[in-house]
Amino acid sequence: MPNKKRVGFIGLGIMGKAMAGNILKAGFPLTVYNRTQSKSAELKADGAKTAVSPEGVAQDSDVIITMVSDSPDVEDVILGPAGVANGVRKGSIVIDMSSISPQVTQNITKALGEKGADMLDAPVSGGSWGAVQGTLSIMVGGDKDIFDHCMPIFQAMGENIIYCGKNGMGQVTKLVNQIIVGGTLAAVCEGLIFGAKAGIDLNPVFEAVGGGAANSWQLQNLGSRVLKRDFDPGFMVKLMHKDLRLISEAGREMQQPLPITNLIHQFYHVLQNDGLGNEGTQAYIKVLEKLSGVEAKG
Amino acid sequence: MPNKKRVGFIGLGIMGKAMAGNILKAGFPLTVYNRTQSKSAELKADGAKTAVSPEGVAQDSDVIITMVSDSPDVEDVILGPAGVANGVRKGSIVIDMSSISPQVTQNITKALGEKGADMLDAPVSGGSWGAVQGTLSIMVGGDKDIFDHCMPIFQAMGENIIYCGKNGMGQVTKLVNQIIVGGTLAAVCEGLIFGAKAGIDLNPVFEAVGGGAANSWQLQNLGSRVLKRDFDPGFMVKLMHKDLRLISEAGREMQQPLPITNLIHQFYHVLQNDGLGNEGTQAYIKVLEKLSGVEAKG
Repeated sequence: MPNKKRVGFIGLGIMGKAMAGNILKAGFPLTVYNRTQSKSAELKADGAKTAVSPEGVAQDSDVIITMVSDSPDVEDVILGPAGVANGVRKGSIVIDMSSISPQVTQNITKALGEKGADMLDAPVSGGSWGAVQGTLSIMVGGDKDIFDHCMPIFQAMGENIIYCGKNGMGQVTKLVNQIIVGGTLAAVCEGLIFGAKAGIDLNPVFEAVGGGAANSWQLQNLGSRVLKRDFDPGFMVKLMHKDLRLISEAGREMQQPLPITNLIHQFYHVLQNDGLGNEGTQAYIKVLEKLSGVEAKG
Repeated sequence: MPNKKRVGFIGLGIMGKAMAGNILKAGFPLTVYNRTQSKSAELKADGAKTAVSPEGVAQDSDVIITMVSDSPDVEDVILGPAGVANGVRKGSIVIDMSSISPQVTQNITKALGEKGADMLDAPVSGGSWGAVQGTLSIMVGGDKDIFDHCMPIFQAMGENIIYCGKNGMGQVTKLVNQIIVGGTLAAVCEGLIFGAKAGIDLNPVFEAVGGGAANSWQLQNLGSRVLKRDFDPGFMVKLMHKDLRLISEAGREMQQPLPITNLIHQFYHVLQNDGLGNEGTQAYIKVLEKLSGVEAKG
């Protein structure tokens, strides 16, 4: 393609705004939309066009990216009254980078297909830091040719870009990721609370277990924050709570028992009930502390 | 100390034999004992003395190391009829490198103290490979001066040698390690079985999740083996089953709820019931496969 695709971006939260900015920096003509219009200001100053609706974004774009919170939000911006589906043309490509239900993704794919538009599901991991730096992991489901076609756009936003299979498989991969992330963190926290209850100094424990088979990204990055009593979010409790709900729903639809993950889900209800939704997921330790009457500090 | 301490070693299983061999290589005079005497032959050929009982080892040694299977075995070789306690002198040091109950460790420490002998608990991680290479992690509880005094002996066997606190705290650290190891592996397996049930190709999933917050030693080393259907042991199911029992017992004594770990313990009962005790812990996936009717192969 001699000319760069015109890209549309819907959803300018912490993640979306940074990702859209990287697309603009990579030289793609960009049209953006956000429900709260003020969030478009900075991108507009940098050269992006703004649209008054998702439909308007779709009319001005060859590739339309959505980055919103949850399954109903994606359904709304794509299939709703002023949604993307009203503005797409034959050959348009919609890339949903939100983390949502694999089933809803497949439904939306079907609806867009009836308009002649293609869809990819491309949820990300790597957090707001990865979004800013353009180092996200991107897990993509959909037609392989469409994936290849969109690679330059993905490369503007991420580094580890992996084709996972047909539509929905990007979302499935993201949920696998979250099962492992949530379970690994829970294991780290349960180990630390055991040590705390036994009255041990957790600093040498951390050093000892970090050197071998117990080591993980979660231990190094979040276990260490637990010991420092640093509950600032890398990834927020409320977002993990949402992902655990998606996992639980998908498991139920597939009749797949998820004994550990569903138990962890219960504890995230406790975190939400305790008003800790905006803390980092390492606040999981607080549930265990509540159950055991000791604090896991280093 | 101008002359090297005389070291005794009791328990020449896969781990113990390799560890004793490294002590001999480091130039310590060594006396060994194993219930099955034939296991001493190789060390004897390399210059070790053999004793007819743990008591005999203690009579010939300044530092006596025990490396046996479980709490009752340690009680037997130290406090039993021909046990170490009958042969120790004032100033002897007993180092138990087995993984056993922190409570039992403290009881034995007390019994040895009445004979004027000191004790360290110093369980290890790093497996048979680490034992052979002399790269074990060693987690030590007991008097700090005694720990410092024994450092040259530890250095003959390991690399990551960490003082964890008073008697029993080496064992507590080991149990924290096993809580995290067991939980992280369970998280990896639950993620993989979810993907398998959703019908996804697990190879790109493995690649995608290995690049970020889901990454762990367990994912890289055992998740990969699950996909290859390689169930050879790095660490055996039956040993993890034992460690989970120790954790469960210690949790009960401390009134510490361990919701995830105790659930995992139940599944290790299933593995044992299915005759998989000698497989590697990655066989944990087989319980989930049994529950869900799909196989997590790559």
